Amino acid sequence: MAEPGPGTLLEEMRARAPLVQCITNFVAMNIAANALLVAGASPAMVHDMRESGEFAAIAGALTVNIGTLSPEWLGGMRAAAEAAKAAGRPWVLDPVAHFATDFRRRATAGLMALGPDILRGNASEILALAGGAGSGRGVDSGDPVAAAEGAAVALSRASGAVVAVTGEVDFVTDGTRSARIAGGSPLMPRVTALGCALTCLVGAFAATRPDRLFEATVAALAMFAAAGEMAAREARGPGGFGWMFLDALAAVGPAELDAPGRVLPA
Amino acid sequence: MAEPGPGTLLEEMRARAPLVQCITNFVAMNIAANALLVAGASPAMVHDMRESGEFAAIAGALTVNIGTLSPEWLGGMRAAAEAAKAAGRPWVLDPVAHFATDFRRRATAGLMALGPDILRGNASEILALAGGAGSGRGVDSGDPVAAAEGAAVALSRASGAVVAVTGEVDFVTDGTRSARIAGGSPLMPRVTALGCALTCLVGAFAATRPDRLFEATVAALAMFAAAGEMAAREARGPGGFGWMFLDALAAVGPAELDAPGRVLPA
Amino acid sequence: MAEPGPGTLLEEMRARAPLVQCITNFVAMNIAANALLVAGASPAMVHDMRESGEFAAIAGALTVNIGTLSPEWLGGMRAAAEAAKAAGRPWVLDPVAHFATDFRRRATAGLMALGPDILRGNASEILALAGGAGSGRGVDSGDPVAAAEGAAVALSRASGAVVAVTGEVDFVTDGTRSARIAGGSPLMPRVTALGCALTCLVGAFAATRPDRLFEATVAALAMFAAAGEMAAREARGPGGFGWMFLDALAAVGPAELDAPGRVLPA
Repeated sequence: MAEPGPGTLLEEMRARAPLVQCITNFVAMNIAANALLVAGASPAMVHDMRESGEFAAIAGALTVNIGTLSPEWLGGMRAAAEAAKAAGRPWVLDPVAHFATDFRRRATAGLMALGPDILRGNASEILALAGGAGSGRGVDSGDPVAAAEGAAVALSRASGAVVAVTGEVDFVTDGTRSARIAGGSPLMPRVTALGCALTCLVGAFAATRPDRLFEATVAALAMFAAAGEMAAREARGPGGFGWMFLDALAAVGPAELDAPGRVLPA
Repeated sequence: MAEPGPGTLLEEMRARAPLVQCITNFVAMNIAANALLVAGASPAMVHDMRESGEFAAIAGALTVNIGTLSPEWLGGMRAAAEAAKAAGRPWVLDPVAHFATDFRRRATAGLMALGPDILRGNASEILALAGGAGSGRGVDSGDPVAAAEGAAVALSRASGAVVAVTGEVDFVTDGTRSARIAGGSPLMPRVTALGCALTCLVGAFAATRPDRLFEATVAALAMFAAAGEMAAREARGPGGFGWMFLDALAAVGPAELDAPGRVLPA
Repeated sequence: MAEPGPGTLLEEMRARAPLVQCITNFVAMNIAANALLVAGASPAMVHDMRESGEFAAIAGALTVNIGTLSPEWLGGMRAAAEAAKAAGRPWVLDPVAHFATDFRRRATAGLMALGPDILRGNASEILALAGGAGSGRGVDSGDPVAAAEGAAVALSRASGAVVAVTGEVDFVTDGTRSARIAGGSPLMPRVTALGCALTCLVGAFAATRPDRLFEATVAALAMFAAAGEMAAREARGPGGFGWMFLDALAAVGPAELDAPGRVLPA
C-alpha cells in the first residue's frame, strides 16, 4: 500500500471533520447522514439546483447518488458537480442501477461527462458503466466483484476517476495501482443503502485528502469493512446490524483499519 | 384457507426474491426497503414518471402509497400503474389518509380508475374508500377493523381488487372469500410506516404468485403478524421493536406463518 | 417557572394526542414521525402546496423545517403557514443552516414574514437569524448556546416568537421570561436530525396549549432532555442511542420532566 495508510487517514479525517455535501436518494438520506456523523464528518444534504452549486464551493467534497432520480434532482446534481469541479473539490458518483432505464442511462452519461473524481458501485453497475453486460436487474448486484475488476481498471483509465467496486471483497483502482479490501459481513448487503452511505464516507476521506484520492477511497472502504466486521460479532440479524454498525463506525480506530489482511495490493 | 398456504408462499417468495417497485412516501422509504430486503425480496424505489413505467415492466409487482403526495409523484404513480397493467403485473394501492384533503381524494379516485389489483389500508381508509364515513383524521386509524369488514367486501366487489384492512386482527377479502389474520403486537402501530412497509411486502408476495392474489395477500399479512409476535417477545418499547421486527422478518419461517389460529376463514 | 409545569403539559399532550403537521427534511422524516408517535402525538407529513394549507386547518399545529429545501417545498411551507395563521393554529419554524446559501436566506426571510409563533435552532442559526455572525458552516452548530442567549431575546422581541436555542443546555425566551433546560446527553448531537424531531415535538406541545407557547416549548425541551438522559444510561454509542432514545420518549413521565434542576429560570 502507498502511504498514507488507512489508519492515518482516519485520524486526519476525524481531526478535520470535513463538511461533505451528499446528494443521495430518499432511502439512504438518514443512514448516510448518520454514518458520516458517527464516523467523524459533518454531512449536509443540499440538493436543489438553486443552492447546490453555491454549497459545493463551501463543502470539502460532494457525493452524488442517483438512486431515486428525477429531473429536478438531476439538475441539482449537475449544478453541484460543475461547481465542485470549478472550485477544485473532489466529487464522487454512485451510479445506482444506471443500466435499468433509458432516463437513468442518459442521466449517468451526462454526469460522467462532468468528470467525477471517484466512482463507486457494485459489480453489475461497474461492468455496465465500462460498457459490458452485467447481470443486474435492480439495485442489488447480480455479479461478483472479481468479475468486474478488469472493467474497473479500463473504466478508470478511460474516465480518469478512481473506481471502487464494492462487495464481499472490495476492489479499488486508479488505473495503475489497485487494491483489494477485505472484511465486512454477509449482513451488510441485507441492510438497505449501506453502499450509498459508503459513497458518502468516501466523500469524507476525499475531502480530507483531495491530493490522495486512491488512498482516501481505500481508507473509506477499510473503515466500512472494519466496522462491518466489528458489528457482525454481536448482531443476530440485519435489523440489529443496522444500528450496531453505526456504533462500530464510531468506535473503530486506526488499528482495525490497518489490521493485517485488511488491504492487499491487487 | 385455500391452498397454497402462507408458509408455502413464503418459501416460494424467498426462492424467487422478486424485484418489487415501491413508490412510497418519504417516511416509509427506508423501513419499507429494509423490510422487503430482510424478508427476502429485492426492493427498488423508482418513482419518476420518466422511468417509473419502463421499470414497472421489469419489476415483478408495483406498490403505490400516497403518504407524501405531490403532482410530480402522482404522475409517476400513474405511469407505473398503467405500465404494470399493460404488462400484466399486479399492483397494490395504499391510499394513505385519502379522505383528508381534496387533492388526495382526486388523486385516489384517479388511481382507483387504473384498476389496482390489491388495496391495503387501515379501517378508516377502507371505510372512506367504500363511500362510508370513518373517524380518521390523519394517517392513524380512528376505527376498528371489524367496523370496516362489510365495507371491504363491498369495495372488493365494486373494484375487483383484493382488499386488506389491517389492524389488531387483519381482514382480507376478494369479495367472495374472506380471512382474518391474527398476531402482531400493540407496539406495531407505535412504529411509523410499518403499514406502508406491509404494503410493499404484499407486493413481494403478489409478484411471487400473481395468479393467487388473495392467498398472496393473506401470506404477506401472516408474515407480518408472525414477525410482530416474535419481535414483541423481546422489545421493551417501540424504538427497540423497530429493529427487532426487521430481525424477526428475516428469521420467521413457514411454521410461524402456518401456526394454528394465524389465519382463520371469515 | 410559570405554571403549568412540563409534567402537567406532558400529561395533557398525551391525553389529547394532537395531530401535528410536519413539513420537514428528508433526513428527519422517519425519526421525526417516530419521535412524535412514541411521545404520544399523531404526526402527519403533508407538504405539497395543493394540500398543505387545507391540512393545516385540520391539524393542531404546524412545524416547518428547511433542511432539504426546494422551491416546490417552499411553496407548500408558505401555503401551510398562511393557513395555520388564518386558522389561529401555532406554527414553528426550524431555519436549518439558513445562513448557508442565498436561496436559504431568502426563503427564511419570506417565512419569517409569515409570523412563526415559535423558532427553534442551534446557536449558530439563532445568532445569524438575529443579525449576528455565528461560526456555523453546515447544519452543525459552531457556537455554544450561551453565546446566543442575548441574540435569542432580541430576536424574540423583534419577531414576537418564542425562541428556543438548543444545545448542551437549552435556552428558551419569549422576550420577557427566559428559562434554561438541562439534561440530554453528548450522544444527542451525534444522531442526525434529533433537533429536527425536537422541532416537531415542540409542535405537539404547542398544539396542546396554544395559549401557553412559552411553557409548551419549555415542556417539549424538558421531555427531550429527560429522554436523552434516560437513553444515555444504556447506550454505548450513537447507533444504539437512536432507538433507545425513542424507547425513552415513550417511557418518560411527568416526574422526569419536573426533576430538580431540569428547568431553571434564566
